[in-house]
Amino acid sequence: MSPFLAEIIGTAFIIALGDGVVANVILNKSKGNGGGWMVITMGWAMAVFIGVYCAAQYSGAHLNPAVTFALALKGDFPWQEVPAYVAAQLLGAMLGAFLVWLCYKQQFDETSDGNTKLGVFCTIPAVRNKGYNFLTEFVATLVFVIAVLFISKPATGLGSLDALPVAFVVLAIGLSLGGPTGYAINPARDLGPRLTHFLLPIKDKRDSDWGYAWVPILGPLCGAAAAAFIFKYCLQ
Amino acid sequence: MSPFLAEIIGTAFIIALGDGVVANVILNKSKGNGGGWMVITMGWAMAVFIGVYCAAQYSGAHLNPAVTFALALKGDFPWQEVPAYVAAQLLGAMLGAFLVWLCYKQQFDETSDGNTKLGVFCTIPAVRNKGYNFLTEFVATLVFVIAVLFISKPATGLGSLDALPVAFVVLAIGLSLGGPTGYAINPARDLGPRLTHFLLPIKDKRDSDWGYAWVPILGPLCGAAAAAFIFKYCLQ
Amino acid sequence: MSPFLAEIIGTAFIIALGDGVVANVILNKSKGNGGGWMVITMGWAMAVFIGVYCAAQYSGAHLNPAVTFALALKGDFPWQEVPAYVAAQLLGAMLGAFLVWLCYKQQFDETSDGNTKLGVFCTIPAVRNKGYNFLTEFVATLVFVIAVLFISKPATGLGSLDALPVAFVVLAIGLSLGGPTGYAINPARDLGPRLTHFLLPIKDKRDSDWGYAWVPILGPLCGAAAAAFIFKYCLQ
Amino acid sequence: MSPFLAEIIGTAFIIALGDGVVANVILNKSKGNGGGWMVITMGWAMAVFIGVYCAAQYSGAHLNPAVTFALALKGDFPWQEVPAYVAAQLLGAMLGAFLVWLCYKQQFDETSDGNTKLGVFCTIPAVRNKGYNFLTEFVATLVFVIAVLFISKPATGLGSLDALPVAFVVLAIGLSLGGPTGYAINPARDLGPRLTHFLLPIKDKRDSDWGYAWVPILGPLCGAAAAAFIFKYCLQ
Repeated sequence: MSPFLAEIIGTAFIIALGDGVVANVILNKSKGNGGGWMVITMGWAMAVFIGVYCAAQYSGAHLNPAVTFALALKGDFPWQEVPAYVAAQLLGAMLGAFLVWLCYKQQFDETSDGNTKLGVFCTIPAVRNKGYNFLTEFVATLVFVIAVLFISKPATGLGSLDALPVAFVVLAIGLSLGGPTGYAINPARDLGPRLTHFLLPIKDKRDSDWGYAWVPILGPLCGAAAAAFIFKYCLQ
Repeated sequence: MSPFLAEIIGTAFIIALGDGVVANVILNKSKGNGGGWMVITMGWAMAVFIGVYCAAQYSGAHLNPAVTFALALKGDFPWQEVPAYVAAQLLGAMLGAFLVWLCYKQQFDETSDGNTKLGVFCTIPAVRNKGYNFLTEFVATLVFVIAVLFISKPATGLGSLDALPVAFVVLAIGLSLGGPTGYAINPARDLGPRLTHFLLPIKDKRDSDWGYAWVPILGPLCGAAAAAFIFKYCLQ
Repeated sequence: MSPFLAEIIGTAFIIALGDGVVANVILNKSKGNGGGWMVITMGWAMAVFIGVYCAAQYSGAHLNPAVTFALALKGDFPWQEVPAYVAAQLLGAMLGAFLVWLCYKQQFDETSDGNTKLGVFCTIPAVRNKGYNFLTEFVATLVFVIAVLFISKPATGLGSLDALPVAFVVLAIGLSLGGPTGYAINPARDLGPRLTHFLLPIKDKRDSDWGYAWVPILGPLCGAAAAAFIFKYCLQ
Repeated sequence: MSPFLAEIIGTAFIIALGDGVVANVILNKSKGNGGGWMVITMGWAMAVFIGVYCAAQYSGAHLNPAVTFALALKGDFPWQEVPAYVAAQLLGAMLGAFLVWLCYKQQFDETSDGNTKLGVFCTIPAVRNKGYNFLTEFVATLVFVIAVLFISKPATGLGSLDALPVAFVVLAIGLSLGGPTGYAINPARDLGPRLTHFLLPIKDKRDSDWGYAWVPILGPLCGAAAAAFIFKYCLQ
């Protein structure tokens, strides 16, 4: 399997299972409805576990443009491969979100609120204030990427034995710093499903909230850059 | 221990502990009543952990006709052993469901609703629409089997060290894609306990909902076939 | 550290942390009050993890007369050491329950119901019927001990690397088969704290429910005997 | 990375993610609001996992003055390095609490109750009685440090492979003995964030409850001393 395909499959797994758990908890007439924050954060953590586990030996399992960006900045990943990795991550995220829509088609139809439907796909802040939302995504991704840089190996990225520690990092971030913005900490996780939401003929959907879309892209990328800088010059 | 017996014991463990957690959460006068989706999905995940851990070195721990089917299609398991494996899985599932009935006999007696009692044994969709229910089981099993194929080794199936990753996959699928249909993703998991429900003298039971029974059989088998095909021709 | 002391310490850890989680969830004015079945079962699982992890290299970490009995019946543990192991397990369980009372002294004082206070120490069935309660403890311990026999090694019992699989077995049993009786599956876990309840000057305590005390002793011991027999003659 | 910096970073991770989960659960307008005890204890456990994982190879990952004190008493850590370790732990804890305030700034503004805001930073007992609160912190830390001494290696403290067992110990203590006082079991975890609360211009904050501050310092230190003594003279 090529690294490009591995990044597609791994990211598709993360979003199919991650957006899936959100659908399960917030859409009407789903067995997990009202399951709460423990269900959501454990679902995303296990989603990342599986994505990393499956993609690790083929691509180093970045599955996140912020991780790819940090590894390139740190000098562990060639810049010329960055565009293909990011494109694969976006494609995989779009595909994963499409699978969630297929599986939960009836639950989408049973739910009338457009914000809830959008919330299955991409992040919506608890209190909308783009400055503070950016700051939260910045700090959460900073912590996330520093931890990932401690876990990953310079030459190969993440291995399959790193899937569990990384999943625990995602669980920790979600439980702890995920409250204000819903923890994108991954530009592809937010933009890919937002594009799927834009493209799909979802019944009674609202607009795709493009005015907020830059926050879960730039926040994570800036946090990743800061993490790479801190890691390279202070923590090694 | 023969592979046949290992598949019986392993599948009996999965169903005794998996149907057991459903009984605990949905039957009246049980200490776990109302425990919610986290309890149910963690119960099934740990059930699979134990089943795979115990059966691994004797049979490769398929414990699921969809897994056996996918491994045979992929060329990793001899077709002539498929019938015995599937029969063992069905027998184990029936035995496991019988143990749950024994342990929860009083709780069954304290619960009057026939749908709830049936729901301990086999899956019932949140919104009944056989086409979409089939589609959900198809996609959930596709994701499940692709992940299992990444985890398993061609010659031997699953080893005891694979029990934890596989349990996490089951946890992820349940949390994320389990909401619409209750995630059979295993024909024996649904048909075996349904047969036990049919045979047992459960007080005030309803019919065993045979009209739906094909969905959690064909959905997983078709998903497994698609997974084997995708894995063999695209992901290796 | 002698095996005797290791069994005391390990069992004290299990009960201090296991009865502790029950106190946290069911006593008034505790931060975990109302935490539910997931909190209780995870608390007991982590309690067993720590007990087994710490005692493993010194005593094989039985920490349960049912396990000691099964290993002796199977021929893996000398009968003449059984009394000392069981005595250590009972002493440890009594000590652990005493520590819980110390830590939760104010919460005991803030709770008036005598059944709730007793329920911190020992198991109380959801529906009282000694025959069915015995059957549930029998089946739950049968499953538990068979799984432990698959995990343990004949000459040494449990090692520290077995702590996690055993903890997951305890989690699975609790989630799934723990609903009717509160899953003693360990005579020392029930009798030791019941003795502590009997001896301590707890404010407004009820009697120690000695009429039920034989159920969580004989049920687990008979289940363990059946497990040892099945394992020895069918599963090896 | 120097041991001093590793202790700062590791403790900052613990508090950013640990105080973060408290903020998520108890502050208004946060997505995890009302998530309950399972969310809080799992958040702290994963926080410790990440802190230990990242700091292990550089400092032995004490991240807790009680651990440093116990290792020094036991003779495994040089006394002259104790002040620097404790200072680093306090600094890291202050930094971590500051990051939580940044991320949850809007949620702090949306919450009017001063006790709730203080509760994000440091521990507040469920029933205030300094004698019993001290006793609970003493026993909880005694159990915690004995378990950590079983897990750690004399010459090097904690390694990255010890991160998971230690996280499970923290999970167990929180679930089980954390109910009366909120389980500081770490003087830096309580004092550092309390100082941050004192220094930050938090809207409508109450005083920093200095009258209680000695309990989560002396309780853990005395518990650690008792653990070191018991471990050295009885359990080795």
